[in-house]
Amino acid sequence: MVVTRPDVERAATRIAAHVRRTPVLEDTPDLTLKLELLQHGGSFKARGAFNRILAAGDLPEAGVIAASGGNHGVGVAYAARMLGVRAEIFVPEICAPVKVAGLRALGAHVTQTGAIYAEAYEASAKRAAETGALEIHAYEHADVVAGQGTVGLELLEQTGAFDTILVAVGGGGLVAGITAALDGAAGVVAVEPALIPTLHDALANGGPVQVPVSGVAADALGASRLGRVAYDTVAAAGIRSVLVGEDAIVEARDHLWRTYRIAAEHSGATAMAALRSGAYTPAPGERVVVLVCGANTDPSTLA
Amino acid sequence: MVVTRPDVERAATRIAAHVRRTPVLEDTPDLTLKLELLQHGGSFKARGAFNRILAAGDLPEAGVIAASGGNHGVGVAYAARMLGVRAEIFVPEICAPVKVAGLRALGAHVTQTGAIYAEAYEASAKRAAETGALEIHAYEHADVVAGQGTVGLELLEQTGAFDTILVAVGGGGLVAGITAALDGAAGVVAVEPALIPTLHDALANGGPVQVPVSGVAADALGASRLGRVAYDTVAAAGIRSVLVGEDAIVEARDHLWRTYRIAAEHSGATAMAALRSGAYTPAPGERVVVLVCGANTDPSTLA
Repeated sequence: MVVTRPDVERAATRIAAHVRRTPVLEDTPDLTLKLELLQHGGSFKARGAFNRILAAGDLPEAGVIAASGGNHGVGVAYAARMLGVRAEIFVPEICAPVKVAGLRALGAHVTQTGAIYAEAYEASAKRAAETGALEIHAYEHADVVAGQGTVGLELLEQTGAFDTILVAVGGGGLVAGITAALDGAAGVVAVEPALIPTLHDALANGGPVQVPVSGVAADALGASRLGRVAYDTVAAAGIRSVLVGEDAIVEARDHLWRTYRIAAEHSGATAMAALRSGAYTPAPGERVVVLVCGANTDPSTLA
Repeated sequence: MVVTRPDVERAATRIAAHVRRTPVLEDTPDLTLKLELLQHGGSFKARGAFNRILAAGDLPEAGVIAASGGNHGVGVAYAARMLGVRAEIFVPEICAPVKVAGLRALGAHVTQTGAIYAEAYEASAKRAAETGALEIHAYEHADVVAGQGTVGLELLEQTGAFDTILVAVGGGGLVAGITAALDGAAGVVAVEPALIPTLHDALANGGPVQVPVSGVAADALGASRLGRVAYDTVAAAGIRSVLVGEDAIVEARDHLWRTYRIAAEHSGATAMAALRSGAYTPAPGERVVVLVCGANTDPSTLA
């Protein structure tokens, strides 16, 4: 299933009243940062959550249920709270304490279970079958992907023309949504931790495959398999993936803080890591946008 | 001496190639945040430093010298480094270690002396007399005030019309520069810690007077007397001052982190404190801009 630009346009209309238009920082003529980490809930995830809930229409009494490495859970919990819907969130045990606390502060019922995202997801699916709650998968649904893509439409409105956008990948919802939103107006380069190569391995194998999950960005990018919607959407567009090492992600996060005073989490710094490490080298004069997608970090680790 | 809008326009032309156009976050139709804390060096101070140095023309061999609670020092050190000029910075002992380390990383020679800003300033003035270096006062010079004002011009270009901007005050350079830049296009409300009422007491006394200096924002707003240039500029424009308590500043800083993932220092959160605490209550429909002016904070204190 391929998500298209009209899908993203409909999503943008649906969620406009609920999400922040996040700022862009035009650092040099060739480098713009899209500060989606300043979105409600500290990442882009609120966009997909609002779109999924609003597109679903009437909701079951049990409300919504989601599994998440953290940010998707926050996005769903935030959207549910704003829309007056009950939310249950399953997170893996690896999930940072600051994220669990944030979920509870948003009024969600949180269950922490499983070593990785996939296990938390299993538990949430079982629970959803029992309660009848609307499942909001973190990336395996066209409405979620289209919602995430609204950040791309917004960027087109905010900036002049650019050549390339660098986007971090976990399950692929964000990169697929942006690919749909841009619809060829600029190139999309997917950036993945080498330790979680969901898109890289999917492209090499002609479809999503199971990958190992580890490393500094695992709590947010730790999907063990690319989404099918994401795969179909990005494969059709010929998107390429570049891999970045752990040191590069850590360095990029430090760079964002030192140079810009932007407090990103590791996943949020992954796209920047491709530029900083040379995993992606722009051509001379190429105008690049780096999407800084998440801020749900323990700030004491920035010092 | 009054700084005027043409002064600020000339400054903007002079420094355009050197400073960041910092993003704005339009949170609601009535509330916009100007994220000047993302400026080079983590505060607006680079603007005034670049303008002062570039307007001075040929520089002495000893380069530039400044005294600062931290941010002005960083702004001067950054500008000097980018322009290939030697910089010596005097900071009071209260200055946060993260700021001193930042100054040294920029290649400045740092001397830490005196309990408060005024004492560090005395030492720097003595040293300047010995070496012949160009003194860059943190706020008592029209070129510095005009440089700080460029953030106001930039804001006018970035946003639609607004009614009021809230600006934190220490020595008054920023609020005076913005007052000049806006030139009546919007109201300016000065926000000061109740423990450092430089402008409040100056307005009450018909001119700058000595005030006590203490509290959470003292390392950045801890001027013991409003600048004369600042006074003349804001008094002529009829700017009012509102005072905020320590708890309000701490709460506003926490709010900026929790709600927006903006990592502000206490001085950077002082303007927001006026809104959050009710020290300033906008009229229904009043469109307010909060200037978030500094990020040079130890992020571990945000957790």
